[in-house]
Amino acid sequence: MIYQLADILGTVAFAISGVLVAIDKRLDLFGVLIIAFVTAIGGGTLRDLLIGNTPVTWIQDLTYVIVIPITVALAILFSKQLKFLRRSLFLFDTIGIGLYTMVGIEKGLEANLAPVICIALGTMTASFGGVLRDILCNEIPVVFRREIYATACIAGGGLYFLLTVLNTPEKIAYAIGVLAVIAIRICAVKMNIRLPNIYRNAK
Amino acid sequence: MIYQLADILGTVAFAISGVLVAIDKRLDLFGVLIIAFVTAIGGGTLRDLLIGNTPVTWIQDLTYVIVIPITVALAILFSKQLKFLRRSLFLFDTIGIGLYTMVGIEKGLEANLAPVICIALGTMTASFGGVLRDILCNEIPVVFRREIYATACIAGGGLYFLLTVLNTPEKIAYAIGVLAVIAIRICAVKMNIRLPNIYRNAK
Amino acid sequence: MIYQLADILGTVAFAISGVLVAIDKRLDLFGVLIIAFVTAIGGGTLRDLLIGNTPVTWIQDLTYVIVIPITVALAILFSKQLKFLRRSLFLFDTIGIGLYTMVGIEKGLEANLAPVICIALGTMTASFGGVLRDILCNEIPVVFRREIYATACIAGGGLYFLLTVLNTPEKIAYAIGVLAVIAIRICAVKMNIRLPNIYRNAK
Repeated sequence: MIYQLADILGTVAFAISGVLVAIDKRLDLFGVLIIAFVTAIGGGTLRDLLIGNTPVTWIQDLTYVIVIPITVALAILFSKQLKFLRRSLFLFDTIGIGLYTMVGIEKGLEANLAPVICIALGTMTASFGGVLRDILCNEIPVVFRREIYATACIAGGGLYFLLTVLNTPEKIAYAIGVLAVIAIRICAVKMNIRLPNIYRNAK
Repeated sequence: MIYQLADILGTVAFAISGVLVAIDKRLDLFGVLIIAFVTAIGGGTLRDLLIGNTPVTWIQDLTYVIVIPITVALAILFSKQLKFLRRSLFLFDTIGIGLYTMVGIEKGLEANLAPVICIALGTMTASFGGVLRDILCNEIPVVFRREIYATACIAGGGLYFLLTVLNTPEKIAYAIGVLAVIAIRICAVKMNIRLPNIYRNAK
Repeated sequence: MIYQLADILGTVAFAISGVLVAIDKRLDLFGVLIIAFVTAIGGGTLRDLLIGNTPVTWIQDLTYVIVIPITVALAILFSKQLKFLRRSLFLFDTIGIGLYTMVGIEKGLEANLAPVICIALGTMTASFGGVLRDILCNEIPVVFRREIYATACIAGGGLYFLLTVLNTPEKIAYAIGVLAVIAIRICAVKMNIRLPNIYRNAK
């Protein structure tokens, strides 16, 4: 129940981030809807395709097909007000990547895949929707350029596996994994922490 | 028989639209071939992947692998004359999206999917090849920016399901679905109808 | 054994080509890693998805998940020295496409697909990683614009099937196929051979 509510909050946040980018590119109504949809379900879809989990999730579970168009309609109607929600949106989005990371890891575990692959699937679930959004909008994906984002997913996923190796009960490890992703991302943004600069000696 | 002829006409029209964009970008012969191919089969391929219908259609049915290269060769040889065919091309393309929409819906029904998902699959079959064409040519997909295109597919697909709910015989509903997509697109272009502008209060 | 070494060399070369493009775009560490990964495994992944061979190869065989990050780390550390390795890199890359072409063809044969489809899968395995790399970096794929590259894969693949029709022992045909791709690419680059210009009468 709490889990499903959080999943919906994450979907809403991802869809809104798609709407914002699409409006910025002045796409038409259909374009905005598709970008919102792709941002919200793109990561999970790629994950499902790679592990052979078809039909993919959003085709089987109609929640997304209901939640995303409603979100888009509201986001367009209240687009002026959206900028005042920036802080809430960041929080939703961050909760979203925390949850999506662990959802991806669970799907990998169900398919008996190695921990490193599970972490990759979790990170993909959380971040690939944004990558697709940026490609469709003809931008280099922002996740490749700025901020601790995917890195938070990798770190949270790694922590989860470390905890399970240490015999932490599954549910607790899961919750800590989600919270770790959220905490790392919030700290990184608040404290302006970035990945090590690989262009030092470039200049 | 008529169905297959129409499928080939649609494929030819989609392939030519790919050739035109690729030549515009001055791609080489291989690039033009791939763009034509992706434009013609991209939508159906994505649909097949999402519902787990693999190997995807064009790998199993060699029609496309024969028709598309021949189309590309002729389109390059007669590229000067192509501009005089603009009206025929628009008609082929419009017939193509009408048929592709219903093909996608049928595939969804065969997989026992919900009507809304079937309509999404139909729209994807008809429009995603053009999206891939534009991404590969480094453009924001034209379908996100202009004209009633995908919207015609959604409307025609919706009409089909409405008719089946009203107990219309399957073949008649199918034909009306195809014709509705074609009619909506032609009317929209002739009468310059567009999606509601979501940027009114933006300025 | 020789085969596996060559596969690793090809993966390393593809990963380095990804690193070079990603650094050129000044992506961050995560971006560089993903571009390297996608360049190295993108072609095989698309092939696996299209024929329904899931979970895809790199999810089942951890070699790639080990080799690619190590390659990226070394490529970043020694990025200044990389330019002196240009000739070796070209050789690795060319060996890579030769091998990847035949790997793709074998996977098609295992799935009982037609020769023309197998050649398409082989060419895709060899060249689609580079296509994805360029799309993610917001460039029109270089393989669509320049040089004999994919064309070498198609020619080598065609030669392989010609030889098997002529009852050449499988292993010999395989080796000749790989060598043909390599030889055609090297000759084309050395002798500056290109695809026929389709823009003659364009001016």
